[in-house]
Parts: sequence; structure tokens; C-alpha cells
Amino acid sequence: MSKIPPGPRDERGVLSSRILVAARGAFADTGYAGTTIRAVARAADVDPALVYHYFGSKEALLDAATDPPQRWLQNVARAWTTPVPQLGAALVRLMLDAWADEEIGPVLRAILQTAAHEAATREKLRLVVERSLMGVSQLGVDERDRMLRSGLISSQIMGLAMMRYVWRIEPVASMDDDELVAAVAPNLQRYISDDLG
Amino acid sequence: MSKIPPGPRDERGVLSSRILVAARGAFADTGYAGTTIRAVARAADVDPALVYHYFGSKEALLDAATDPPQRWLQNVARAWTTPVPQLGAALVRLMLDAWADEEIGPVLRAILQTAAHEAATREKLRLVVERSLMGVSQLGVDERDRMLRSGLISSQIMGLAMMRYVWRIEPVASMDDDELVAAVAPNLQRYISDDLG
Repeated sequence: MSKIPPGPRDERGVLSSRILVAARGAFADTGYAGTTIRAVARAADVDPALVYHYFGSKEALLDAATDPPQRWLQNVARAWTTPVPQLGAALVRLMLDAWADEEIGPVLRAILQTAAHEAATREKLRLVVERSLMGVSQLGVDERDRMLRSGLISSQIMGLAMMRYVWRIEPVASMDDDELVAAVAPNLQRYISDDLG
Repeated sequence: MSKIPPGPRDERGVLSSRILVAARGAFADTGYAGTTIRAVARAADVDPALVYHYFGSKEALLDAATDPPQRWLQNVARAWTTPVPQLGAALVRLMLDAWADEEIGPVLRAILQTAAHEAATREKLRLVVERSLMGVSQLGVDERDRMLRSGLISSQIMGLAMMRYVWRIEPVASMDDDELVAAVAPNLQRYISDDLG
């Protein structure tokens, strides 16, 4: 295929999505320092100048490639409105649905694959966890208790996501969805409402 | 300080440890692709030729830098001999002690910071988890049940390690050790011996 030059305005969405898909793959495969705009452009089959034109810099490209979709933040907020007795199961389903989603899954993967070695993404992950997994919860008797419970819930969900989707360690990686919900939800329920002392 | 040339045999241990410490820092900070032997040598204050002399290649250097210390594998095996009613707490303590250990902690950090984006380290992490967290367990009624329980235990412990030591998300990052054991051990006990259906 030949390189595609900067096109009319309505092509912008298509091309910039293609660049972001390529960027997520490159950051995940070679890390932030090992990724070049040139390599991303090659993978997206566009001219490097277009990547600079749309995103300005490698730093801004990483930022855009790891930006959580608005739809995901809405799903998270909705899951947290689940009645307490079903909240554990709802949070496991939230994770399963997000990773199965064509738009959301690759962004979460890019965040987790880059956050371990890149400070800017780690900061973004911290914000995502604090605002989405912790910030909206109404758990606990006071602010410290609420943050503690949300943090423990996050630790279980994030560990599950790393094992299942990033590191792909069996049998967690290929466990049936319903089996996983049945196994994990009661542990989340303990963090949600039991005495933790 | 001046560069230190290849020294007599008894210096080898000192210099190669210094190179490994520098390599762990570099892989964690800039990823595998973004790390050069030259940068590692500079950080270790040795000649790049010495790094090649001791380790042969960047790939072999990564392998050595992420090799779990024998002492850690022994600690893991010992923890798994804890009587079942105390096993959950013993596994949380195992994690806390490992990360507080001057020799073991930095290696675990290097593995977790590199595994997300580097296939060779991901494979090593998989082996470490399977052999140490899963392979030695005697849990469950059959092999599948044993692996499932060990995998769920790993998901909680690894998620806790990511939150506390790699991503440093509060309040999990600075929770008191005893408070963390009290909060998490009962959840591990459920994975160890309760009905998961």
C-alpha cells in the first residue's frame, strides 16, 4: 500500500484511529523509549509528518493512545451504582466486558503494558484507578475506610487483569467468565462490606 | 570516578552485581528496547566491554537481571508448608518480606516492570508464578482445582504487589504491614480452602 497524505477533514478520524492503534501496539511491544514516531507511522501506513501533524510529539501520542474512552468511565460509574449485595459480581463483569470491548480493551492493555516502565502512564493509571475504581465508591464508614476498601478491590481486579490479559498465565487466562465471577465476586464482597480488621 | 578495568577474579562478583543493579534500573526506566549496554555501563561506572565480557549480550543481561534469587524460591517453598489455617497470612507475609529484602525486592521489581512489554521476561514471570506460587501448592481436590486456586491466590498477591510497589497507588502503597495481612489473608483463605462454585 502507498502512504496516505494528509486528507480532507472527514478522513482525520479514520487516520488518527489507525495511528493510535499502531501506537498502542508499538508502546506495548517495545516500551516508550524504544518506540519511534517513524515506526508508528510505518505500522499505520501513514507519513511520519501526519503523526506529528495530528499529535505533535511522542509524549502527546502516548497520552492520546492511553486515554481511557469516555464510554468506559461511564460503564465504571454505572457499575458502582449496583446494589451492595451484587456489587462484587458487577465489578468482575465490568472488567470482563471492558477487556472484551474492541474500543476499550486495547486502551486498557496499552495502559497496563506501559505503566510499569513509563512514569507518565503510571501517573495516568493512578488517576484512572483513583477516579474510576476508587473515586466513585460510597463504601466504608469514613474517607480512609472508603479508600482502603476501594484500594483492596482494585488490587484484586488489577491482579486478575494482569494475569488474564497482560501476562496470560493459565488457568486464569482462559477461565470461563461465569466461573471467574463465581470464584472472585465473594472476595470482592468481603472488601466491600465485611469487617477487615 | 574513573572507569574500572576488568579486575582480578575476586572483583568479578562485586562488579557484576553493580552491573546488574544498573541494568535493573535501566530496564525498569526505559524498557528493554530503550536500554543500551552503553547506558548500563555508564550507570555502573564500568567499561561497556566489561558488560559484554560478563554477560555476552543485552538479552543475556536482561535474563541475569531478572533471575529470581535462589533464596527467594526457598522462602516461597517454605511458606507453602504453613498449615492451611495460617497459609493466607503466610503468603501475604512472604510478599511483604520479599519486597523489603535488599537482594530480592529489586529483582521482583525488575521482573514486574519489564514483563508487561518484553516477551522474554513475561515468559520468565509466567514460569516464576507457575513454579513458585502455583507449582508447590498442595491445594484442591484435583490438578485443575489446585491450579485454579493457586492462580486466584496469585492474582490477588500480584495485584497487591503492582498496586503497592510498582504503581504505588495509595492507600495500598503505604498501608501498615499488619493491617494489610489482616485485610487480605482471609480472602486468600477463601481461595485456599472454601467452595469456589
